[in-house]
Amino acid sequence: MTAFAALHVPGSPLLLPNVWEFGTAAFLAAQGFPALGTTSLGVSAAEGEPDGAPSSKDATVRLARRLTGLDALISVDLADGFSEDPGEVGALAAELAEAGVAGINLEDALGDPVRHAAKIAAAKDRAPGLFVNARTDTHWLGTPDIGAAIGRSLSYVDAGADGVFVPGLAEAADVEKLVKAVGVPVNLLFLPGKVTVAGLAGLGVARISLGSLPYRMALAATLRTVEAVRDGGELPLTPPSYADVAALLPESH
Amino acid sequence: MTAFAALHVPGSPLLLPNVWEFGTAAFLAAQGFPALGTTSLGVSAAEGEPDGAPSSKDATVRLARRLTGLDALISVDLADGFSEDPGEVGALAAELAEAGVAGINLEDALGDPVRHAAKIAAAKDRAPGLFVNARTDTHWLGTPDIGAAIGRSLSYVDAGADGVFVPGLAEAADVEKLVKAVGVPVNLLFLPGKVTVAGLAGLGVARISLGSLPYRMALAATLRTVEAVRDGGELPLTPPSYADVAALLPESH
Repeated sequence: MTAFAALHVPGSPLLLPNVWEFGTAAFLAAQGFPALGTTSLGVSAAEGEPDGAPSSKDATVRLARRLTGLDALISVDLADGFSEDPGEVGALAAELAEAGVAGINLEDALGDPVRHAAKIAAAKDRAPGLFVNARTDTHWLGTPDIGAAIGRSLSYVDAGADGVFVPGLAEAADVEKLVKAVGVPVNLLFLPGKVTVAGLAGLGVARISLGSLPYRMALAATLRTVEAVRDGGELPLTPPSYADVAALLPESH
Repeated sequence: MTAFAALHVPGSPLLLPNVWEFGTAAFLAAQGFPALGTTSLGVSAAEGEPDGAPSSKDATVRLARRLTGLDALISVDLADGFSEDPGEVGALAAELAEAGVAGINLEDALGDPVRHAAKIAAAKDRAPGLFVNARTDTHWLGTPDIGAAIGRSLSYVDAGADGVFVPGLAEAADVEKLVKAVGVPVNLLFLPGKVTVAGLAGLGVARISLGSLPYRMALAATLRTVEAVRDGGELPLTPPSYADVAALLPESH
């Protein structure tokens, strides 16, 4: 079992902060978070591309390569793998594993589950040590259906997925059904006001992602800061100093 | 006078939010801010490079090209121009002006003022319509010296600078001296607890930059968010929704 896989403990879930650029990741790694994920929305938005679009692949890979230099295990959100060709997805998985990435996320976007399973199988074939988290969008895009979530998840586990991710799922009874059915670590998305870390832990969840929430909070913080300066109000938070941030970066070279 | 130059009104200063990636810029532009600057610390940190290092030049240019698609005037922080060759700095200024950038910042880092003036002259020669903001680091790096700030600023104005920027300067009497001496718009950095927008306006300042503050606040917001989720506490701010952020991005293509 890899160090990253070992962090996925049902009942004592890994809280995975999602990042979109180097500085935030370095800041969180310095706080002692053992693992960081990326957020496709954040990475795409930072680059000015649609969420998870193939045009955001280069930015995703570039960021992943930078993050592996940090003292944290890195899981990369690959959206749908940026391709419908399992061979291309497998090659991308191999490239990232070679760069030192610990895990990837692949989402089905409610498309053909057989093709998605083929992408997962290709990733595991090319990068056996990479933790492949298989996301199904039954509760994110469509009408929530726990039976469909379990069915798709099981087919992805059959294909070699190390864990399954059902963002949008929050209903306790359905979470328990999924945990019991799949036999691999279950990842859920933190949904403010709908779930808590303690509650999901109690249901046997093994990993909790923050998704785009940190990125969206960063946007809110920026706007509130500018408004506070403009209006002569209080700053919303206490920021790290310039020197603190500069110290997170490589030396001039 | 360009539209960007016209926003520099002594006594009614342009508040320039500084950004480091597309999504934040799009979010602020959608709020109606007429002009946005970039922050070299933020751009460099996002890329995992030292602040303002030549290795951050590509990321700076790539971001600038994305930002010019927004409904806001864009000023790009070029640190020292990423080169000691005025010809290279002039070529970079021309490239950015061609891409639709409204202004640039060039800082002297307390180096040879003659060479810095040559960079400014080269930028204005190659891109006459670009608003060149000449920064001197007398109050950022060294022992504050208003005489040196004025002397350097005047030599940069002689070289063609459209405005001058003295980050770190906050003392009211010295601000007034600088404003009177230079005859072009004066830009200062917002320093929390030391200055206010209203106070600087009263001293005749024409532009107020936020520098790295928004970026550092974004870091703080991210950490506080992760901690709040982990600890079951309240989120520090109310974020925009996923759909709100996705709507800021280009359509899939």
